Amino acid sequence: MGDTQQAREEALVQEVLASFDGTGDPRLKFVMQALTRHLHAFLREVRLTEQEWARAIEFLTAAGHITDDKRQEFVLLSDVFGASMQTVSMNNEADANATEATVLGPFFTEGSPEVPLGGDISGGAAGQPCWVEGTVSDTAGKPIPGARLEVWECDEDGFYDVQYRDDRVAARGHLFSDADGGYRFWALTPVPYPIPHDGPVGALLDATGRSHMRAAHLHFKVSAPGKRTLITHIFVRGGEYLDRDAVFGVRDSLIADFTEQPAGAPTPDGRELGTATWTRTRFDIVLPDAT
Amino acid sequence: MGDTQQAREEALVQEVLASFDGTGDPRLKFVMQALTRHLHAFLREVRLTEQEWARAIEFLTAAGHITDDKRQEFVLLSDVFGASMQTVSMNNEADANATEATVLGPFFTEGSPEVPLGGDISGGAAGQPCWVEGTVSDTAGKPIPGARLEVWECDEDGFYDVQYRDDRVAARGHLFSDADGGYRFWALTPVPYPIPHDGPVGALLDATGRSHMRAAHLHFKVSAPGKRTLITHIFVRGGEYLDRDAVFGVRDSLIADFTEQPAGAPTPDGRELGTATWTRTRFDIVLPDAT
Repeated sequence: MGDTQQAREEALVQEVLASFDGTGDPRLKFVMQALTRHLHAFLREVRLTEQEWARAIEFLTAAGHITDDKRQEFVLLSDVFGASMQTVSMNNEADANATEATVLGPFFTEGSPEVPLGGDISGGAAGQPCWVEGTVSDTAGKPIPGARLEVWECDEDGFYDVQYRDDRVAARGHLFSDADGGYRFWALTPVPYPIPHDGPVGALLDATGRSHMRAAHLHFKVSAPGKRTLITHIFVRGGEYLDRDAVFGVRDSLIADFTEQPAGAPTPDGRELGTATWTRTRFDIVLPDAT
Repeated sequence: MGDTQQAREEALVQEVLASFDGTGDPRLKFVMQALTRHLHAFLREVRLTEQEWARAIEFLTAAGHITDDKRQEFVLLSDVFGASMQTVSMNNEADANATEATVLGPFFTEGSPEVPLGGDISGGAAGQPCWVEGTVSDTAGKPIPGARLEVWECDEDGFYDVQYRDDRVAARGHLFSDADGGYRFWALTPVPYPIPHDGPVGALLDATGRSHMRAAHLHFKVSAPGKRTLITHIFVRGGEYLDRDAVFGVRDSLIADFTEQPAGAPTPDGRELGTATWTRTRFDIVLPDAT
């Protein structure tokens, strides 16, 4: 590339940067100018062709057109480039022994049913029963009573209730930790499932030889007064896709043992499961102070 | 930011990069990995908040939903960040004295009417008559006979024919250079016009104090066997918005004199314009060899 060409390209970047100089909001100005610099650095590094530019426009257009109230292709796009996870990571900085956060995902809903301690969140969804227990404490190890735990997961076919054709609420609920910070509930043993992959993001994963699958996990959102709200998952140790989770949500510290129990093994609360096998897991949650 | 946090963020970038290692197409792999690096560098530099991330998702969703057969908000988005112009610049490298390229824009259409040399492309569109003439030559100065020139522009109200409510074709046409490489035609004196700004891109321009306007210009697409096809504009010297063209299309070398002629001044081809004033301009076009 000649000096003239290089000068032209650099002058253009300066021109775009200067166009944002009059932005009233200083944060918006900073973000737009940083976006301009990184965008042009990308374009110039790869020497984007006009055909590739046109493909990018087509891709974004297709993502826009498949997106509706129930399907969010731009969130998926952010997810599969790790942009969602990076944003979560930056906004939940590592803090002593606090539990790590991970992505919220598209399947959280407000207004989940309350279940008592030891209750069952499955709401009739199919799957292997799973006993989940643990404590909620602060970073000094002091128990947090009355912490609110929202939990949600897919059924054994890999579907969340919001993906059902009817309005059933299943495999989600909320409960509160007891006076010792303890909690316990019945759920379903998590299974892997594919992210929606019949759109442009799915095509991108195919073209790049990547998996559509998420490693098996159970979602948690844990909040308590004066504490940073934690949005996270626990993952099933030994499960498939831990090393290639489509959205990069796996953190080593969030992988938990889900120990298999034979049919007839006595349950923690005396529940009768007949001939069903079940699993149990433990997840002790540490919330940092709110900043 | 602590070392642990920094290590987490860097590990995530490496994880996303590695996810593309299995991409079959080496160019796609290179582009996706470069995109990953620049995207995460942007996110980490600005420390994007979760609220800003959500705003970005909303913005892209709104851009997708306003985009249809006639409206392309993602092209506008690329335009107002100078990404379109940078792509044009990179794919039309500076080459000796070759005429500079600029953005195609969204208003080019195939199948424009042919007009004879000296003919009128206005097709009944309203505006001040403008005589346009010049030559097409190669970089050694040798005339190129039979070069095809496509020209198009907006009317005096700032609308292209494709924005009309009916299917009229106006203010566009094509012609061929003569044996000496010369060309000439009647058009309209270009006027400034706003890019479509009732969508999210318009809101972004408002929030950042930027203009919606494009500097007045006449579009050219010039092709000849063995030569690189040139897509460019000429801009009206002294016109408003030359220093703040919304899409960064202005190049100094593309600014031309449009000299005002009083009513009654003799026209180059003897055309009678009655009491109308008119303008004239000259644009000599130099095409490099195709590579």
